[in-house]
Amino acid sequence: MSAHSQAMKTRLTEAFDLTHPIISAPMAFAAGGKMAAAVSHAGGLGLIGGGYGNAEWLAQEFGAAGNAAVGCGFITWKMAENPGVLDLVLERKPAALVLSFGDPAPFAPRIAEAGVPLICQVQTLRDAQAAAECGAQVIVAQGSEAGGHGERRATFTLVPEVADWLARHAPDVLLLAAGGIADGRGLAAALMLGADGVLVGSRLWASAEAKVSSAMTDAAIAATGDTTIRSKVMDTARGLTWPDRYTARVLKNPVTERWHDDLDGLRANPAAQSDWAEGWVAGDPARANTFVGEATGLIHDRPPVAQIIQGMVAEAEALLTRAPGWAGA
Amino acid sequence: MSAHSQAMKTRLTEAFDLTHPIISAPMAFAAGGKMAAAVSHAGGLGLIGGGYGNAEWLAQEFGAAGNAAVGCGFITWKMAENPGVLDLVLERKPAALVLSFGDPAPFAPRIAEAGVPLICQVQTLRDAQAAAECGAQVIVAQGSEAGGHGERRATFTLVPEVADWLARHAPDVLLLAAGGIADGRGLAAALMLGADGVLVGSRLWASAEAKVSSAMTDAAIAATGDTTIRSKVMDTARGLTWPDRYTARVLKNPVTERWHDDLDGLRANPAAQSDWAEGWVAGDPARANTFVGEATGLIHDRPPVAQIIQGMVAEAEALLTRAPGWAGA
Ligand SMILES: Cc1cc2nc3c(=O)[nH]c(=O)nc-3n(C[C@H](O)[C@H](O)[C@H](O)COP(=O)(O)O)c2cc1C
Ligand SMILES: Cc1cc2nc3c(=O)[nH]c(=O)nc-3n(C[C@H](O)[C@H](O)[C@H](O)COP(=O)(O)O)c2cc1C
Repeated sequence: MSAHSQAMKTRLTEAFDLTHPIISAPMAFAAGGKMAAAVSHAGGLGLIGGGYGNAEWLAQEFGAAGNAAVGCGFITWKMAENPGVLDLVLERKPAALVLSFGDPAPFAPRIAEAGVPLICQVQTLRDAQAAAECGAQVIVAQGSEAGGHGERRATFTLVPEVADWLARHAPDVLLLAAGGIADGRGLAAALMLGADGVLVGSRLWASAEAKVSSAMTDAAIAATGDTTIRSKVMDTARGLTWPDRYTARVLKNPVTERWHDDLDGLRANPAAQSDWAEGWVAGDPARANTFVGEATGLIHDRPPVAQIIQGMVAEAEALLTRAPGWAGA
Repeated sequence: MSAHSQAMKTRLTEAFDLTHPIISAPMAFAAGGKMAAAVSHAGGLGLIGGGYGNAEWLAQEFGAAGNAAVGCGFITWKMAENPGVLDLVLERKPAALVLSFGDPAPFAPRIAEAGVPLICQVQTLRDAQAAAECGAQVIVAQGSEAGGHGERRATFTLVPEVADWLARHAPDVLLLAAGGIADGRGLAAALMLGADGVLVGSRLWASAEAKVSSAMTDAAIAATGDTTIRSKVMDTARGLTWPDRYTARVLKNPVTERWHDDLDGLRANPAAQSDWAEGWVAGDPARANTFVGEATGLIHDRPPVAQIIQGMVAEAEALLTRAPGWAGA
């Protein structure tokens, strides 16, 4: 059995006409057009990380995606400060629009009108309900183990609980799992938990096509999953006014050691803040923080996107194919 | 296909001669001999929750287990204060001895000498390595979504990361997943992630045989997974000197609302402490806390143990049997 000759089959692959039920995470700064295009070319759906909504960067990265059918994601509360950027992206007819971290309701009608599928990434059952009610076609249940911003619930329980609610109240809404999926085991497990597919961040962040410094990637490759932390240090250092409930998962480093329990001290220390900002621009994992999830412990290299997706699918297919053996069948 | 006629098959079922790869959690106070015996009779391995090491309670509960082959678990750091209780249990030739939360190394030789399999429950990769090095036959990788005490890493990433390490360094050591497994989806997903079986707490805590007040169970049945919290309020109220790194997952209630961010205040407030203690004895979920995991959102009833295990196995077998369909096979 060759991975390359196979296609996986779920409600997601059928609805979005994909070869594999894999969507890349709209990772701010890291997920540019080149990475998104590579994901779509490999049979998944690639997303540009619209992040905080920089129009110039977005134009550049949509350009870099060329003719590939890619989507785009925004950090909702930030995009809401400058919603014109949503219209700019909708004019490009993206394959999907992802909203995370904030209320999608004000934007759902405009996205529906543009004929673009709305994907909402959520961190609680309650937010999944709200997303379904405002018309999301796909809900991404994101667990706390995820890299980047998120909340406290874990993938392992959030996915089946949302699946149960959707089955009863919105059976046509598709469900993806996010947080901790970095190989074929994670993909197969997500399907067992009731997901129609997965959204993958950290694993694709450590790809040849990602816009990430090699020092940051190397730090993640060297780390085990024990060494990440959810913190507010980074947003405090950058002066980003994230809503209270969200923290971001990064690799621990001297900066989180020093400030994690002293955010007020960091707020009062402009020198420490600009040191973080300079470290971030330099891509230095000791002065700024590497945004990556617990899956960092499953990441040991930085291959091209196509290789990552093929490996993930081949491993998942092998597991799914031998699964009946565990059932004693 | 009938669940009752099937037997699942993994390295765990073979090593422990079980019908199903399911071990019950050694839940302090809740997992008595009756529950443990019911789990073993249903084809899994039942464990008595030796918890903080009360010899009288243990004698009573081993009595209640009758002739069933059951194991026993201890909270290691607490048992270490009174290790005689370990000898008392080893004399009963338990089917397995589980050590969680503390260094198992000082006790491993005595357990090996007694010919009793040692199972270590761990919360990090580092502790999994230490457990394998001191001779554990089985490692339970416990994610943060778990009910009761635990730490920060999630089941979804901890299990495959430990599996990878064991495959390279201790391939004969078996691996169980714990934290969030409450139905057949969780069991099937755990196998995909590389586990040889599962350790189930919350779902069996809400069983007819568990030693839990119906008010506590009802509170969990009514709750969604969004409403749990990892906190130190309960141990502070009880004056238990748990090591810093461990918190316990419970349902949020007015007590956690009030004290979660003010442990010093709680320490200085004997009236609040004794109110918690009285609420605990009364089984009152508003005055004391319901110990349960995020899986509370997947728990809607309190059936007998046998029904829980049969349902879990039947659902897992159905998923595993149709798994090749997702692979496009
Ligand atoms: C470097 C990085 C940046 C991220 N930026 C965003 C973002 O801008 N918007 C967003 O919705 N999610 C963002 N995320 C979270 C992802 O959408 C996704 O939930 C997460 O990566 C999934 O978990 P995983 O990292 O274990 O795959 C980011 C994740 C990472 C690792
Ligand atoms: C009520 C309750 C009490 C627990 N007490 C203990 C204990 O005394 N010793 C222990 O090792 N684990 C204890 N645990 C944790 C379990 O061993 C196990 O890791 C956890 O229940 C698994 O997650 P789940 O609750 O989602 O199934 C307890 C869990 C619960 C729910």
